[in-house]
Amino acid sequence: MRSEFSPVEGFDPPALGEPYLLTPGPLTTAYTVKQAMLRDWGSWDGDFRSMTADLRRRLLALIGDAKGEYDCVPIQGSGSFCVEAMLGSFVPKDGKVLVLANGAYGLRAAQTMQYLGRAFTLIDKGDYLPPRGDEVGAALDADPAITHVIAIHCETSSGILNPVAEISEAAYARGRKLLVDSMSAFGAIPLEVGKIRYEAMVSSANKCIEGVPGFGFVIAKKNELEKAKGNSHSLSLDIHAQWAAMEKTGQWRFTPPTHVVAAFLEALRMHEAEGGVAARGARYMKNRNVMVEGMRKLGFETLLSDRWLSPIIVTFFCPSDSNFVFERFYELMKDKGFIIYPGKLTVIDSFRVGCIGRMDEHVMHRVVEAARQSLAEMGVASAAPPQAALAQRAKLAA
Amino acid sequence: MRSEFSPVEGFDPPALGEPYLLTPGPLTTAYTVKQAMLRDWGSWDGDFRSMTADLRRRLLALIGDAKGEYDCVPIQGSGSFCVEAMLGSFVPKDGKVLVLANGAYGLRAAQTMQYLGRAFTLIDKGDYLPPRGDEVGAALDADPAITHVIAIHCETSSGILNPVAEISEAAYARGRKLLVDSMSAFGAIPLEVGKIRYEAMVSSANKCIEGVPGFGFVIAKKNELEKAKGNSHSLSLDIHAQWAAMEKTGQWRFTPPTHVVAAFLEALRMHEAEGGVAARGARYMKNRNVMVEGMRKLGFETLLSDRWLSPIIVTFFCPSDSNFVFERFYELMKDKGFIIYPGKLTVIDSFRVGCIGRMDEHVMHRVVEAARQSLAEMGVASAAPPQAALAQRAKLAA
Repeated sequence: MRSEFSPVEGFDPPALGEPYLLTPGPLTTAYTVKQAMLRDWGSWDGDFRSMTADLRRRLLALIGDAKGEYDCVPIQGSGSFCVEAMLGSFVPKDGKVLVLANGAYGLRAAQTMQYLGRAFTLIDKGDYLPPRGDEVGAALDADPAITHVIAIHCETSSGILNPVAEISEAAYARGRKLLVDSMSAFGAIPLEVGKIRYEAMVSSANKCIEGVPGFGFVIAKKNELEKAKGNSHSLSLDIHAQWAAMEKTGQWRFTPPTHVVAAFLEALRMHEAEGGVAARGARYMKNRNVMVEGMRKLGFETLLSDRWLSPIIVTFFCPSDSNFVFERFYELMKDKGFIIYPGKLTVIDSFRVGCIGRMDEHVMHRVVEAARQSLAEMGVASAAPPQAALAQRAKLAA
Repeated sequence: MRSEFSPVEGFDPPALGEPYLLTPGPLTTAYTVKQAMLRDWGSWDGDFRSMTADLRRRLLALIGDAKGEYDCVPIQGSGSFCVEAMLGSFVPKDGKVLVLANGAYGLRAAQTMQYLGRAFTLIDKGDYLPPRGDEVGAALDADPAITHVIAIHCETSSGILNPVAEISEAAYARGRKLLVDSMSAFGAIPLEVGKIRYEAMVSSANKCIEGVPGFGFVIAKKNELEKAKGNSHSLSLDIHAQWAAMEKTGQWRFTPPTHVVAAFLEALRMHEAEGGVAARGARYMKNRNVMVEGMRKLGFETLLSDRWLSPIIVTFFCPSDSNFVFERFYELMKDKGFIIYPGKLTVIDSFRVGCIGRMDEHVMHRVVEAARQSLAEMGVASAAPPQAALAQRAKLAA
C-alpha cells in the first residue's frame, strides 16, 4: 500500500494517492504513528492507564519544569475545547481577562469569554499586527480589574509568532496571570517555564508533536489546578475535575480517544528521538526557509516581514494576475500531492502554506516546484500581489 | 501481526496478545475499521467534507425519519460531552428538566444540569430500578414548570434497558419534550422516530456502531436545532453553532478527529452490511444469551431479572466464596484474553461483562470457559452470590 515515490531517509512519503497536508493540523503524520492505532485498548485497564501516565510525563518534560510545579491534564476534543476548558477553569467567575487578538484564534478566545459570561477586555490588532508588551502593560495599568491575560503563541490566521515573552513580562510586572494558547507552536517553539512565565498553556495532539487529532492538553501550575475547583462552567471541560480524577485513578474521567492516545505516544517517542523541541523547530524552520525562498523566487510575497514569520505556517498574497483563481490553484496543487490552506485575512486575498508535519526540506522543494507548475498551467505570468495589497499591508503596519 | 487463533468466519480475533474488550466501549472493533485510520486527511478538503456528509446521512438512516424532520450533528469528545451539549443546547435557559436516574449516567446528567445552572428535578431510582411511565407522568403533573425529560436508554451502570417508550408517552401526553441518552444502545436497540417520540438523542462512535472513540453525535429535530440558537453555555458544545456551520460549509467548526471519523465510516458500512440495527441487536442478544446462560450454569447470578436485561452489558454479583477477589479474577480473565469491567453498584459487590463489539457467540462460549477456569484457579467452589446481595436486591425491587 505504501508509495514507492522518492522516499527521503526517515521521511516516508504518504501512502499512494495521499497528498501531503501543508496545513496547520491535522497534518501529515508518520506511518508508524498511524500504525499505533491498529489495536483496541480498554480505557479502564492498567495498560492504558500506564499509557496515560507516560503521555503526561513526556509532555511535562518539554517545559523544563525543574521545580516540579506543573502538571499535565489531557482533555478530549479539539484544541478549541482546551482553550475553553482553560478559560473556564482558571479564570474565576469574578475574574476578568485581557484577550489579545490578531486573528481568528484570539477572537475565538473572546467569543469563548462571551459564552462564559465572564468579564473581558479585547485588544484586537486586526489581521496580523502583534500585540506588544508596552500596550499590554498600558491596558493592564488602565484596568486594575483585569486578573488574567490570554495570548495566542502562534496565530495561524496569519502565521505570526506573537511576542509571548514580552507579554508575559508586562503581565507579571503588574501582578497579573498569563494563559497561553500554544496550540500550533508547542513542541517546536520553546515554551520553557524557566524562560517565559505563565500559569497554564494548552496545545493539541495534532500539531507540532505530529499526532492525529482527537484530544488536547493543558499544562498548568499545580496550585492553579487546585484553585480551579468550582470555577468551570462545564462538566466536560472542567480541568480541575479531570485532573483530580486522573490523579486518583489514573484514568480519564470520561471515555478517552484510546487510539489517538496510542498514536500520540508514538509521536512523542519520535519527537524525542528527533531531538526534542529544538530539533523539531529547526526542521520546521528549514522547511519554511526553503519554501518561502522558493515562493519568493516565483514572485509570491509573504504577508509578514521575516521578523514575524513563524516556522509553522506562512501567509502569501494571492497574485494580482487575473488568471489566478485560488480554488483552481488549490486543485492543481492537490493533483500534484499537496494540500494547501485557504487564507483567513479579512481585507486581502491570501492563502497559506504550512511547514509542520512529517516532512522535510526535500518535500518543500517539491512544493515550490508544484506551485511553479500550477501557475504555468493557470497561465499566471507573475505571482506578484496587487499593489493595493502591499499598500494595505504598509498602511496597517504603519 | 494478526493472530492465527481460531478465527470465526467474518469475525477475526484481535491481534496476537490483544484481549477482547467485554466493556461498554471502547470495545473490540474490526481490523478493517482500524485500518481505515492508516492515512491522514485535511479537514478543510473536499474529500473529508464528503466523508462528514456521508456519516451524517448514514446515521440519519438508522432512525427511520420518513418525513425528513431530523438532522445529525457530530460533536468532538466523549459521549458525556454530547449529553452536556444536548442539555445545554436544547434546554432553554429558563427551561426545567426532569432527570430520570438509575445509575451513574442518569446522575451525571443531573450533575451536568448543576454545572449549567439550569433548573432540574431528579427522580433517582437507585442502582437499577427502572423509572416507569406512571411515575414520570405523576412527576410531570406535579410540576408544570418542567419542560424536558431526559432518559437514559441503556444505563450501563447496571445494564438495564430502560422503558423509553412509556417514558416518551408519559412526557408527550403532557406536552413535554423528551431527550434520550442512547449512548450504549443506539445502533443495536431500535430508536425509530415513528415508534418512539423524542426531540433529540445522543450516542457515540465507540458503542454499538463499533467505531473507535473520539466523537459522538446528536440526532435532533431540525426545528429544535433552529430554536437552539443562543441557548448553549459553551462555545465548543453549542450544537446549533456546529450544525449551522456544517450546513453552510460542510466542515466541522473546529478540528475533527479525522482518523476516528474514517474508522467510523467503515464501521457504518459494516453495520449496514450486517443488516442494520436489527441484525446488530440480534447478534448482541445471542452474545448475551450464550454468556448469561453459561455464567448462570457456573452459579453466577445476574443483578437483573430477564425482563430488564439489556443485550449491551450484564451485571453479575460477585460470588460469596471468600476466595473470590475481583482484582484477581480480572487479571486471570485478562490472561485468557478477555477484559471484563468492574461493577458500579453502590450497595452490592458486582462486576460487568459486555456483549457488544466485534465478537459473536463463539467468543462468548470462550468467555464462559475462561470464567470457569479462572474460578478454579482461584479455588472458588461456587459462584453463588451472598444471600445478603439477593435479599438486598429483593428489598430494593419490592
